Amino acid sequence: MPTAVIMPAPHQPLETRACEMPALPPGGVLLETLFSEVCGTDVHLWHGRLAGVPYPIIPGHVSVGRIAAVCGTVKDIEGQPFREGDTVAFLDVHGSCGRCFYCTVAKATTRCPERRVYGITFSAGEGLHGGWATHITLKPGTRLLRLPAGLDPAAYIGGGCGLNTAFHAVERAAVAMADTVAVQGAGPVGLSCVAFARLRGAGTVICLGAPADRLELAREMGADVTIDITQRGVDERLREVRALTHGRGADVVIEATGQPGAVAEALHLVRDQGTVVIVGQYTDAGEITVNPHLDINKKHVDIRGCWGSDFSHFYKAIAMLGRHHRQIPWRRLAERQYGLADAQRALEDVAALRVPKAVIVPAP
Amino acid sequence: MPTAVIMPAPHQPLETRACEMPALPPGGVLLETLFSEVCGTDVHLWHGRLAGVPYPIIPGHVSVGRIAAVCGTVKDIEGQPFREGDTVAFLDVHGSCGRCFYCTVAKATTRCPERRVYGITFSAGEGLHGGWATHITLKPGTRLLRLPAGLDPAAYIGGGCGLNTAFHAVERAAVAMADTVAVQGAGPVGLSCVAFARLRGAGTVICLGAPADRLELAREMGADVTIDITQRGVDERLREVRALTHGRGADVVIEATGQPGAVAEALHLVRDQGTVVIVGQYTDAGEITVNPHLDINKKHVDIRGCWGSDFSHFYKAIAMLGRHHRQIPWRRLAERQYGLADAQRALEDVAALRVPKAVIVPAP
Amino acid sequence: MPTAVIMPAPHQPLETRACEMPALPPGGVLLETLFSEVCGTDVHLWHGRLAGVPYPIIPGHVSVGRIAAVCGTVKDIEGQPFREGDTVAFLDVHGSCGRCFYCTVAKATTRCPERRVYGITFSAGEGLHGGWATHITLKPGTRLLRLPAGLDPAAYIGGGCGLNTAFHAVERAAVAMADTVAVQGAGPVGLSCVAFARLRGAGTVICLGAPADRLELAREMGADVTIDITQRGVDERLREVRALTHGRGADVVIEATGQPGAVAEALHLVRDQGTVVIVGQYTDAGEITVNPHLDINKKHVDIRGCWGSDFSHFYKAIAMLGRHHRQIPWRRLAERQYGLADAQRALEDVAALRVPKAVIVPAP
Amino acid sequence: MPTAVIMPAPHQPLETRACEMPALPPGGVLLETLFSEVCGTDVHLWHGRLAGVPYPIIPGHVSVGRIAAVCGTVKDIEGQPFREGDTVAFLDVHGSCGRCFYCTVAKATTRCPERRVYGITFSAGEGLHGGWATHITLKPGTRLLRLPAGLDPAAYIGGGCGLNTAFHAVERAAVAMADTVAVQGAGPVGLSCVAFARLRGAGTVICLGAPADRLELAREMGADVTIDITQRGVDERLREVRALTHGRGADVVIEATGQPGAVAEALHLVRDQGTVVIVGQYTDAGEITVNPHLDINKKHVDIRGCWGSDFSHFYKAIAMLGRHHRQIPWRRLAERQYGLADAQRALEDVAALRVPKAVIVPAP
Repeated sequence: MPTAVIMPAPHQPLETRACEMPALPPGGVLLETLFSEVCGTDVHLWHGRLAGVPYPIIPGHVSVGRIAAVCGTVKDIEGQPFREGDTVAFLDVHGSCGRCFYCTVAKATTRCPERRVYGITFSAGEGLHGGWATHITLKPGTRLLRLPAGLDPAAYIGGGCGLNTAFHAVERAAVAMADTVAVQGAGPVGLSCVAFARLRGAGTVICLGAPADRLELAREMGADVTIDITQRGVDERLREVRALTHGRGADVVIEATGQPGAVAEALHLVRDQGTVVIVGQYTDAGEITVNPHLDINKKHVDIRGCWGSDFSHFYKAIAMLGRHHRQIPWRRLAERQYGLADAQRALEDVAALRVPKAVIVPAP
Repeated sequence: MPTAVIMPAPHQPLETRACEMPALPPGGVLLETLFSEVCGTDVHLWHGRLAGVPYPIIPGHVSVGRIAAVCGTVKDIEGQPFREGDTVAFLDVHGSCGRCFYCTVAKATTRCPERRVYGITFSAGEGLHGGWATHITLKPGTRLLRLPAGLDPAAYIGGGCGLNTAFHAVERAAVAMADTVAVQGAGPVGLSCVAFARLRGAGTVICLGAPADRLELAREMGADVTIDITQRGVDERLREVRALTHGRGADVVIEATGQPGAVAEALHLVRDQGTVVIVGQYTDAGEITVNPHLDINKKHVDIRGCWGSDFSHFYKAIAMLGRHHRQIPWRRLAERQYGLADAQRALEDVAALRVPKAVIVPAP
Repeated sequence: MPTAVIMPAPHQPLETRACEMPALPPGGVLLETLFSEVCGTDVHLWHGRLAGVPYPIIPGHVSVGRIAAVCGTVKDIEGQPFREGDTVAFLDVHGSCGRCFYCTVAKATTRCPERRVYGITFSAGEGLHGGWATHITLKPGTRLLRLPAGLDPAAYIGGGCGLNTAFHAVERAAVAMADTVAVQGAGPVGLSCVAFARLRGAGTVICLGAPADRLELAREMGADVTIDITQRGVDERLREVRALTHGRGADVVIEATGQPGAVAEALHLVRDQGTVVIVGQYTDAGEITVNPHLDINKKHVDIRGCWGSDFSHFYKAIAMLGRHHRQIPWRRLAERQYGLADAQRALEDVAALRVPKAVIVPAP
Repeated sequence: MPTAVIMPAPHQPLETRACEMPALPPGGVLLETLFSEVCGTDVHLWHGRLAGVPYPIIPGHVSVGRIAAVCGTVKDIEGQPFREGDTVAFLDVHGSCGRCFYCTVAKATTRCPERRVYGITFSAGEGLHGGWATHITLKPGTRLLRLPAGLDPAAYIGGGCGLNTAFHAVERAAVAMADTVAVQGAGPVGLSCVAFARLRGAGTVICLGAPADRLELAREMGADVTIDITQRGVDERLREVRALTHGRGADVVIEATGQPGAVAEALHLVRDQGTVVIVGQYTDAGEITVNPHLDINKKHVDIRGCWGSDFSHFYKAIAMLGRHHRQIPWRRLAERQYGLADAQRALEDVAALRVPKAVIVPAP
């Protein structure tokens, strides 16, 4: 009998419950969960900061599992059927309609109004649609990928949801070979941004964040320079980035912090005619002041918002992970593991920034 | 003997003076000025709002004239020598170094630190380097173009400095066929943005500005819809733009106002995953507040600052003017003409927004 | 009782037959055909030059009709239901899978292997899936658009399938304001390329083609210069294009001819670092010789193949047509109309290039 | 007294001569040559296959040296003066005019008609303007860069002229993270393409070339798979590349061979909607046949010629070399060294493909 963690409502204690094993519809897939994760979004969910969430929910939007059952034939992108026993990951975003203006004309499926997300916008009553559970039921049409040969599921969950987000951000930043890239933030998204900026050929990667052990991890993932924001003020940080760039500022700045103030700082850290990608502002944490003359017009700068990710990011990010997981320690982001019974503690550890990410291991 | 208008210092009355005819260096060109213009930048100069201006200066950064003398051989872009009597315009930006990081690696010559501008960054003591004068002396290396056959110099000065700026802005906006483009501002830059958005294949061009007669001109230049900002509040404007775009907002917004608040409004007027170009913030007029979550990250928007213009914009903008001046009434922006002796009044008329642009006609 | 024209097999005479009115599946739409068209592809079909065609078929891939019945609710891109009596066009391409590498990762849905095309890849036994018939049954998921208000269906069919193809080609060419664009071919695709190049802001549009009346039409659709290829040899054409471009060649060349030799000529007509789009080679008409040093490497040229079109091209092309059909005489391409009984003659007239396009008017 | 190798005319034996030490003009720089190189272009020069070469010449277009004298002040891109003793490289391309259509409007300086190249388009009578000499005199305006700290000049010359060319090709290919990149050719350009494709984040890099020891070097420089073209026929190669790419072909193919037939093969190796860069066809080695329907139009492919390189490529390529020379064995391309007296043998060894590159060490 499956067991799942339920988030009944914002600020309410999590509950662990036994559930019925749901019937699979044709095209559905049942997973035994190997790992799921607790990320900043789950903290936002618990604080009630996301709109349109149908509490109670089973959290856990990015997970990896082993196929326990397939109803009918479900094929991968190459037309090969999935089999019981396959180790798979799935894109948390589901149900982009393929018919609206954003899906068909703008080709920006992450803005499709019908898009739903496992672990976030499915009610617990609809099925096992979140990863903090022994089993996950995937609806027909869910985008599944087998893990590349040799890739440990723990390394995958170390990347987790931040992997896709960071891949999209670095692609949107159009990092060019020899660029100086400043990444603001040393959480899971920031750390993967560091890794992808390095893999894409950045000349110098600078990570601005805290605490010290995450910056150590940032260096292992590819940062040439780290700046501890608890030790250096805004002016000092700016001076340091300029000193590394002949006084000009970074070619690319990627904001991955969740702090609105970082956006204003990004506009100072970037050089004239550089690029700033804003990927860390997933909830409304307040406003900032900007000087449009000095910060935008005269600088001739590009500022690019970056929301969500689509299957292409997921597909390529997993390919990169499969290729480089031996050199880049994504696995270390998955070091802190918790059972289902400890999900509340996991959530609080992430909320308190005690760990960059908490991994849920549902197996008994 | 040449006569020139001198701006001795910010807030000081303009003076009209007879000057020595300067000697031309090899490669220099002497023009008899046909028309020069008074634009918003000249008002900023008079208010002392630009840094690094070596007062006293001869204002007038964009002008058109007839070649009175060439020292040696000066060739056009096709290798044809300029001759006395040719009617020519010139790029106001001069002296980009061709050696610095911005000129050679970033390929953003408008950020070259050695760049100077006729009518702005040359002291009156250096020569006749501004257009509010009967003669202009052009330094060796100045970028000159003959006006296309059939193009009246008055139509050219009607476009004036706003022509290049607007061309650059519309190119940077990457307006696509069938896009809805909202242009904020109905001054010379905004009006030319309307024209170029139309010429580039926009589906619907909306101009938000004032007063009514400029909006009438905007419609003649290609706007399908105009919104009078003195008659409609911010919320009404937003509703109206959304009503024209199936509730989504404009595909592209081009800010050409000089008002910082317009930048914040632009972020509301644009649709998700749309593009905002900021080209109207040429001086520091203050700060705005922005919500990075709602306005940038979640919207997946592109915001692009746009500073100055280079020879490619000048070359192509003049080609477009030559091709389309019969259909698009750039000439009407040049309707208000003033002699040198009336330059003070011209400046005040522009400052008071009584005219979109004042044209200086130096000939007696 | 519906009547349809059947193409039984390559080179076999067309037949006109009464058919059963098919039952609509949920999501299906029944149209009364207003106009369909005979284009070069239909000639290829009749000559057996396309692979994978399930003869017998009802030809007619692009059509416009009036909705006679809707099974259930079918909504447009904005979520508005279609109603009986709506005048609609539909994208001939149907069934791109949304799951394969090309649909999801490469984002090139025109290369989806599951893609089918009305009037081409549906057997007559499957239903009324071609436009040379009084009625058309559209399968669930077909992409429908209402014609813009004021747009005559005859103007739409004048654009027809060439409209989408040309829109895609001009977008892929990335025509920039003031570019010189040479369009090879004065058939339906070439003529719409001329129109869209003009609407996108080309400086000079040159059309190379024949016969004289089509070149006359090309001028009405926006060509500044036409070159009759029956009057001028290859060398003369090249000299003429260079004479119009300061000796350099065109910034953009769009090949829309069906003749392989035009591709080699395009590489000579284009300037160094220019762009060539190949959109006219829809069937295998043979090989050409190219000199990779002179024609590609040293020229630093971009050559872009352009296959099919997707819903975004269809959506935007119709928007452009709705906006500009009064100025640009697309309607004139629809002047030659034929009843169903005359479909054989229509096909032969197109095959013999006696008309640029034949329009089928199925109504009695 | 300087000593230089003279190539008197095509097919004539090289001569080694003592020369006068030339006077430096203001802005000129005198180098003591550390290393110069013999590349395929030098073989072409000796075979008389390049147009416009003013024999006799001093060959050697890419070199590295130590500054022996500076006439006046010559500054680097950051404004720092060069000093005697600095170890510097220089861009072989000199004299792009900065005024023509290609320099200013098209922004394609490699197509500037006034562009000259050290070691190729300067006559020996004009000065020591080639690298096969103990000293090199650099004209005012030559683009110089100090080698990054820690970078051995031998590693730089191992990259040599192929470094810039390959950097440009990989940038023009727009290699994306996780792409499969097939590089045709295992000469200096091909090997550096392998390295840069790897550094830019390619998923799988395939090198097709010969002989076996160069393919071994390709693997050390970053190729995942090598295919020996002396062991596998064209069909086998195609099957192998398809087998590595789910039957589709490579996302990107970079042709760097000098063999026209490789261009035709590239069009088969690439997947639909992929990108082919042609960078190996620097001289006219003949024509190929292409099927425009199958190879270009239906494939929806991008083919990009790539000619020369500019200062931005040189600047960034050296930055990448400085960053990665410890991991990527560019130095090994510089293993075969020859004195000035052995230049003839060096040239013949390169012509016979006995070495990928011959390094000239002029010091006694």
